[in-house]
Amino acid sequence: MPSIPFLKPANGAKFADRGIKKTGELLTPWDGTAVSGIGVLGIPLSKTSISHSGAHLAPETIRFMMHSLTTYHIGSGQDLWDERIIDFGDINMHVTDLFESQMRIHDTVTHVLHKCPDLVPVFLGGDHSISAGAISAFSQAKGRVGIIQFDAHHDLRNLEDGGPSNGTPFRQLIEKGSIEGNQLVQIGIRDFANGKMYHDYAVEHGVTVYTMDDVRKTGLIAILEESVEKLKMSCVTLYVSLDMDVLDQAYAPGCPAIGPGGMDSGVLIEGMVWLAKNGSVKGMDIVEIDPTLDFRHMTSRLAAYILMQFYTHYNNESFPI
Amino acid sequence: MPSIPFLKPANGAKFADRGIKKTGELLTPWDGTAVSGIGVLGIPLSKTSISHSGAHLAPETIRFMMHSLTTYHIGSGQDLWDERIIDFGDINMHVTDLFESQMRIHDTVTHVLHKCPDLVPVFLGGDHSISAGAISAFSQAKGRVGIIQFDAHHDLRNLEDGGPSNGTPFRQLIEKGSIEGNQLVQIGIRDFANGKMYHDYAVEHGVTVYTMDDVRKTGLIAILEESVEKLKMSCVTLYVSLDMDVLDQAYAPGCPAIGPGGMDSGVLIEGMVWLAKNGSVKGMDIVEIDPTLDFRHMTSRLAAYILMQFYTHYNNESFPI
Amino acid sequence: MPSIPFLKPANGAKFADRGIKKTGELLTPWDGTAVSGIGVLGIPLSKTSISHSGAHLAPETIRFMMHSLTTYHIGSGQDLWDERIIDFGDINMHVTDLFESQMRIHDTVTHVLHKCPDLVPVFLGGDHSISAGAISAFSQAKGRVGIIQFDAHHDLRNLEDGGPSNGTPFRQLIEKGSIEGNQLVQIGIRDFANGKMYHDYAVEHGVTVYTMDDVRKTGLIAILEESVEKLKMSCVTLYVSLDMDVLDQAYAPGCPAIGPGGMDSGVLIEGMVWLAKNGSVKGMDIVEIDPTLDFRHMTSRLAAYILMQFYTHYNNESFPI
Amino acid sequence: MPSIPFLKPANGAKFADRGIKKTGELLTPWDGTAVSGIGVLGIPLSKTSISHSGAHLAPETIRFMMHSLTTYHIGSGQDLWDERIIDFGDINMHVTDLFESQMRIHDTVTHVLHKCPDLVPVFLGGDHSISAGAISAFSQAKGRVGIIQFDAHHDLRNLEDGGPSNGTPFRQLIEKGSIEGNQLVQIGIRDFANGKMYHDYAVEHGVTVYTMDDVRKTGLIAILEESVEKLKMSCVTLYVSLDMDVLDQAYAPGCPAIGPGGMDSGVLIEGMVWLAKNGSVKGMDIVEIDPTLDFRHMTSRLAAYILMQFYTHYNNESFPI
Amino acid sequence: MPSIPFLKPANGAKFADRGIKKTGELLTPWDGTAVSGIGVLGIPLSKTSISHSGAHLAPETIRFMMHSLTTYHIGSGQDLWDERIIDFGDINMHVTDLFESQMRIHDTVTHVLHKCPDLVPVFLGGDHSISAGAISAFSQAKGRVGIIQFDAHHDLRNLEDGGPSNGTPFRQLIEKGSIEGNQLVQIGIRDFANGKMYHDYAVEHGVTVYTMDDVRKTGLIAILEESVEKLKMSCVTLYVSLDMDVLDQAYAPGCPAIGPGGMDSGVLIEGMVWLAKNGSVKGMDIVEIDPTLDFRHMTSRLAAYILMQFYTHYNNESFPI
Amino acid sequence: MPSIPFLKPANGAKFADRGIKKTGELLTPWDGTAVSGIGVLGIPLSKTSISHSGAHLAPETIRFMMHSLTTYHIGSGQDLWDERIIDFGDINMHVTDLFESQMRIHDTVTHVLHKCPDLVPVFLGGDHSISAGAISAFSQAKGRVGIIQFDAHHDLRNLEDGGPSNGTPFRQLIEKGSIEGNQLVQIGIRDFANGKMYHDYAVEHGVTVYTMDDVRKTGLIAILEESVEKLKMSCVTLYVSLDMDVLDQAYAPGCPAIGPGGMDSGVLIEGMVWLAKNGSVKGMDIVEIDPTLDFRHMTSRLAAYILMQFYTHYNNESFPI
Ligand SMILES: [Ca+2]
Ligand SMILES: [Ca+2]
Ligand SMILES: [Ca+2]
Ligand SMILES: [Ca+2]
Ligand SMILES: [Ca+2]
Ligand SMILES: [Ca+2]
Ligand SMILES: [Ca+2]
Ligand SMILES: [Ca+2]
Ligand SMILES: [Ca+2]
Ligand SMILES: [Ca+2]
Ligand SMILES: [Ca+2]
Ligand SMILES: [Ca+2]
Repeated sequence: MPSIPFLKPANGAKFADRGIKKTGELLTPWDGTAVSGIGVLGIPLSKTSISHSGAHLAPETIRFMMHSLTTYHIGSGQDLWDERIIDFGDINMHVTDLFESQMRIHDTVTHVLHKCPDLVPVFLGGDHSISAGAISAFSQAKGRVGIIQFDAHHDLRNLEDGGPSNGTPFRQLIEKGSIEGNQLVQIGIRDFANGKMYHDYAVEHGVTVYTMDDVRKTGLIAILEESVEKLKMSCVTLYVSLDMDVLDQAYAPGCPAIGPGGMDSGVLIEGMVWLAKNGSVKGMDIVEIDPTLDFRHMTSRLAAYILMQFYTHYNNESFPI
Repeated sequence: MPSIPFLKPANGAKFADRGIKKTGELLTPWDGTAVSGIGVLGIPLSKTSISHSGAHLAPETIRFMMHSLTTYHIGSGQDLWDERIIDFGDINMHVTDLFESQMRIHDTVTHVLHKCPDLVPVFLGGDHSISAGAISAFSQAKGRVGIIQFDAHHDLRNLEDGGPSNGTPFRQLIEKGSIEGNQLVQIGIRDFANGKMYHDYAVEHGVTVYTMDDVRKTGLIAILEESVEKLKMSCVTLYVSLDMDVLDQAYAPGCPAIGPGGMDSGVLIEGMVWLAKNGSVKGMDIVEIDPTLDFRHMTSRLAAYILMQFYTHYNNESFPI
Repeated sequence: MPSIPFLKPANGAKFADRGIKKTGELLTPWDGTAVSGIGVLGIPLSKTSISHSGAHLAPETIRFMMHSLTTYHIGSGQDLWDERIIDFGDINMHVTDLFESQMRIHDTVTHVLHKCPDLVPVFLGGDHSISAGAISAFSQAKGRVGIIQFDAHHDLRNLEDGGPSNGTPFRQLIEKGSIEGNQLVQIGIRDFANGKMYHDYAVEHGVTVYTMDDVRKTGLIAILEESVEKLKMSCVTLYVSLDMDVLDQAYAPGCPAIGPGGMDSGVLIEGMVWLAKNGSVKGMDIVEIDPTLDFRHMTSRLAAYILMQFYTHYNNESFPI
Repeated sequence: MPSIPFLKPANGAKFADRGIKKTGELLTPWDGTAVSGIGVLGIPLSKTSISHSGAHLAPETIRFMMHSLTTYHIGSGQDLWDERIIDFGDINMHVTDLFESQMRIHDTVTHVLHKCPDLVPVFLGGDHSISAGAISAFSQAKGRVGIIQFDAHHDLRNLEDGGPSNGTPFRQLIEKGSIEGNQLVQIGIRDFANGKMYHDYAVEHGVTVYTMDDVRKTGLIAILEESVEKLKMSCVTLYVSLDMDVLDQAYAPGCPAIGPGGMDSGVLIEGMVWLAKNGSVKGMDIVEIDPTLDFRHMTSRLAAYILMQFYTHYNNESFPI
Repeated sequence: MPSIPFLKPANGAKFADRGIKKTGELLTPWDGTAVSGIGVLGIPLSKTSISHSGAHLAPETIRFMMHSLTTYHIGSGQDLWDERIIDFGDINMHVTDLFESQMRIHDTVTHVLHKCPDLVPVFLGGDHSISAGAISAFSQAKGRVGIIQFDAHHDLRNLEDGGPSNGTPFRQLIEKGSIEGNQLVQIGIRDFANGKMYHDYAVEHGVTVYTMDDVRKTGLIAILEESVEKLKMSCVTLYVSLDMDVLDQAYAPGCPAIGPGGMDSGVLIEGMVWLAKNGSVKGMDIVEIDPTLDFRHMTSRLAAYILMQFYTHYNNESFPI
Repeated sequence: MPSIPFLKPANGAKFADRGIKKTGELLTPWDGTAVSGIGVLGIPLSKTSISHSGAHLAPETIRFMMHSLTTYHIGSGQDLWDERIIDFGDINMHVTDLFESQMRIHDTVTHVLHKCPDLVPVFLGGDHSISAGAISAFSQAKGRVGIIQFDAHHDLRNLEDGGPSNGTPFRQLIEKGSIEGNQLVQIGIRDFANGKMYHDYAVEHGVTVYTMDDVRKTGLIAILEESVEKLKMSCVTLYVSLDMDVLDQAYAPGCPAIGPGGMDSGVLIEGMVWLAKNGSVKGMDIVEIDPTLDFRHMTSRLAAYILMQFYTHYNNESFPI
């Protein structure tokens, strides 16, 4: 830029304060080298959704909302000012061939994990269909994976009625043999949000299910302790799949499948902080935010906040598995 | 429909999953026989509201939101798949003669209860004015009724200033001698939401009043235990009148009279489940949702969810009165 | 329904006036027999859109807006009260396999035209991708077809970059040999809305192109006269493909690709009336309305109005080809 | 107000410019004396509407939008700075007794015209139902009245199906003998917006009907010349009833019954200016604006603008009847 | 107003109930005398905000929402019917000279407190920038002031990067020597909402900081007890600066800087009631509500409710300092 | 970016078509050299507005809407694919010192025109206040300038009541002697949108004023011919100041001061094309779009479209002065 005073690049920040840096500024495009630690990768696919969904826009809005958060975590006293969060960009989706899109997810995640064996990827969906390809590739790269799925729904629907959609990712993983049912823990499953046939499927395949009633009675932290302990007995790594609709509609108004009877955001944040401190989680996705339905990007804001809390409390060294 | 593959009726469901049935599909038009158990009846009247209200649209949206809930109640393991919920349709309201409309409510409820003595009707308002006619007819059919009213407001306004409106239903019932004050328990009455004159009226007539402060200090379940016990001493049946504005504005953004300082949705759901399990309640209304003001039909969603939780936990045999 | 006074079916009309019937009520589900004249068929596909589109919801909203129009056409004195408009319902789209969905369009239209040789189908999109299958099937059934496309865009994009989408239907038809370029007249093509490469393609393939400048200078009726005369020299039937974004954004605020510099709704209505009176058109589609973006369903209202004007002025006997 | 600098009354104008006065400031509460010329009177009734309507809020928004217009009419060079427009306030509507409300309209207009024989009242609705009482009282006070109704609809529905509503005002006037059909000219009647039964009623009763087709072909000014000349042959005064839905939906997005195929705002403004200059009109109403449906109060803005254009061009002296 | 029945002034209340009075009606324009107790003063300035803000509209909406609250406080049995709350109106802001606007705040508050030494002013912002002038004037009039700031943010940004803005009020007060750091207690400071540089500044200057983590762990009442006790050791009066964004986004959706991880409204209300009962607070501001971003004025409703709870529980006699 | 297939940079274009380029992609950051022809410069200032305005966001949205337009101008057959439009970025505005901001505008424009003597700058506002500094600097650099102002308003308010605001730019220019009144032609001035005092000021200072009545009667092209001829007699260069509120509210719903009675977009586009072809205009601004008020960025879309039509038809060689 030329040296004319007061001229700044188009669309740049409107105001700069020397004492403030936004977490969005920590995002650094990947240079192709073998980076480690937490990095983000957008998977903007939502044509796979059963209902009309704009969730493919969420990688953009979550990054945008990272620009509303500063780098300073007052709770722990950490300033992330000098950190960088590697941003792998987005996977390019095909306009009309959704199977091609699914394949691109699997292939791209495989490539990335191959180049970056110590990466802790956070996949920004997209709808929940993206977890099938992402977890399948993650599992091939990392070994037997224990999955903690926060969700109001089982996502174990049959594959005949609509093909691989946002209602089927964990069914796909089980059917293809990518995981066994006992590698999966589902937390926050809600009344009137699932078919009995799919709960039966979960039970038959050894999936562990905690309903919202369980969360209210037992407490999320106790459930997580139990779950991590159990999963670590048979798995070499953990993965969190966070469907934002596990939250009550008052806290996540921008999910396609909002509803009452869900989790408070405070409880979820506390749980994610616990998981981060535990250190066993080596991959994550955040899915099912439709920015076209949200109010003031509240749900994307919350996703960015959860991502940054997780990042801040995450401690590679403590990895206990 | 002819046998051309892929053709389906206009406006039909966009996607069918063999393992999923929606509670909206349980709704079955009444065939005129003497049905029993829980059935719904829409009362689309809101021109009686003091402030501008689209609450007459709520029967439609609550039914529509029942199509967003599946039949499977994971908490209890019950699947309602094979149940049917009788839908009596809506009472036809007069365009301009609101007194005629009120009379139609009374007459229709009377007719229905006469034909179906074992029906447990759930009236979908409409504004709160509909409770006057509904309870009056209910009481004539069923005997002395104890009423549990969830509401931020007394609804005991004088009848001179605006006629029988959504601010007066319980005053009307008392003035006409349909009920005595001690048959009424009001729960969730809020600061700055009522006139002292009407609280005085409540006290003078022996109405039991629990404020939101009481709910926060004593707990809703304890209040309900106390209330049911007391009402059952003098009444032969119970009726719940659920004004959704008893909830805090964060949980019920679509009520005409939203405000802060109200109940959490989790507390209300727990209370309604307790009432269902108790089994004494033999009639109910859900009122004061204006779908034109709501955000993503959140308040209608919540109403549908509460209705289904009540339905699922309701146990006719246990009726103890 | 039982004979209780004032009870009406759930979700029924709120008010009935003996002198008013809505055009929506004329819609009559197809009974599988060989009906003739104008009939509607919904094609709710929009996952094929390049940009995020809810156009698959338009068949539902156009039908709904037909319920805001009465049967009486005061201009001609005709009352359609006793008419019926056959509604073939919607083609069931696959959740994830968009090629399957495209195939279903072609097959279903073929079936329908086979059963009803004298049908004048009006296809309610959906995005513009649906025209490829619809016209291909129409052409196979009816013979060489002349197409009048109202559109801001050529829709002649290459098929490599995104597959068969809402930017490619007429390219597909030409590439597959379903039509030759000289069977196609495009009206309303706009500045800054197309690539030169695709205009060149149009010119090379003998497509006739009238820009918005042409419409403003020459007048739409003159252009239509010229076009129909020309097409009838080589074709045995005509088809209108109406992309609502041919209209200026002030008149069609609910199209995905809104913009300034477009046609006034009055001009388009007049043109469609002229086409109806001419009687040569034997098939039509109305596409590219996204009800989630619209203001008060204005664009669907307009589509329903155009459909009914076309219907009213349409005169089978006068068919001159 | 005390003399502390910079303190101004709560809710006052945010900024004052010495060269600008708003037409809203011309509104002067009536002092009970016999004022003459144009004055406004709000009639906030819309519970009489067949469909859900917030038109009772329009008197407030039209006045509010008068605060967005300055007093200076550059076209004629007139500055209204020193004028005052008498504001009679609003008629108090009953909450539940709509017949009482209708009676209050008739009585209040009668009282006002009795006290102010030279008043040219402009009634701000409200829905169109208010015209029945207003015109009936106007006619009794002023003598045989010729009515020019701008409307997409006849408003001649039968009175049995819903009572006196916004679909019936002119039917009521004719049935009660307040007017004969030949005193009524309807301009802008639209296709698919009326029942044939009611057009037949118009024809049978000698009502003059100009459709939107007539307006487009003949021009509004020519129609008005014809109409005023004809009405003045049998009537001693004229009244304009302006239903804003005579306009196309692009220009009046806030009417309950919006639709395409209507009048441009420029044409209507020109017509109203012509009527004002003519000077024969001695009363008017502006109805059917629902501010809860509008975009940025566009329709109320337009109503305020039309009112002020009428006011500015109105010339008492030229009254020719 | 003349004695015509049913005529009421324009824009007046739509419905009057003899038993209901709204707290908005308690607002009484200041007559210039030395009033005491709680009074409100609007400071409609938000051009000083770093991000685009309509917070200058909040004095109007908070007063408007006071018209949605009745005078009866059922919790304490008090009816405020006969009270009056002095309304000093709004400070007139300059259109373009924001430094002039800031000076007007300081001067006007000084004037008002000089005329009314026993006033307990509640300043209705505006953005948080208004607290600098208000507290500076308050402190000069009342003596050394202890400040309890509810806020997600420190508001201690440097003054070089953007001048005195809504990010700097407490920095300004410290830099100008109006207060020392130990006079300030900040409650509710949030992760990712501040720069470390500004937390360091707080620590260096002896500001007491309670984060949201502290609030969740220790409880707000305990923090307030500790804070008031500490501040009273060195200060002669207390002032509350309530930035509504201390609340979680689910409860205060209308703040410019919404976010997750904040306070529940129930906790804040309880804290404000405690402060009112304590009686030490002698001044207050409520800031950072942007009505153009809110949903159904929820945040202004909550502000009005908090104001009235504070007013009701406030007990001058108990003032212990 | 590394060579992993399907990975693309974050926030990149979602879909690329080889035959389509967007005009937004033509924008090329200035490299500091002496560029010529049309270039854009954002001036994001709107705190200077009398009413609350988000017009400072318009440079961003206009550029964003340039990404909705393709490079191909079918009317003239020109493809701008290989052109570049120099983008000077935005002038950095001060958060609180609006006079400093105004000064920055003047200085920056001066610097830019000094470095690029053959530049034809298009300034993207911001509110209309930015024209004062921009034209003053433009005039100093280029010589006596004739100004064609499209506007509903004179913008000649006094400077005492609110300082230099969006209501005063041309008054400021005249008062400071930057221009004489006869250098200014105002087109589209509207009834009830101005104070007589300011029209008088215009007349006294020799400003040429064409009202909307004039535009409707005489036609815009005739007015422009007259204006350009007249201005060229005394000026060496021309400048267009385009306030988008010259348009009717139906076409420019996103201006702060919308209203009826304005210009059709088609007329304005035709006028701007004429001006471009004429070639005399050497500078321009586009102001008064508030993207927070708009519907689907319609007004910014229109601004981008007008800018590109102007660009395409602009012919340096023909410069006739
Ligand atoms: Ca899921
Ligand atoms: Ca889910
Ligand atoms: Ca109630
Ligand atoms: Ca209530
Ligand atoms: Ca198209
Ligand atoms: Ca198109
Ligand atoms: Ca009418
Ligand atoms: Ca009408
Ligand atoms: Ca603050
Ligand atoms: Ca803050
Ligand atoms: Ca201007
Ligand atoms: Ca202007």
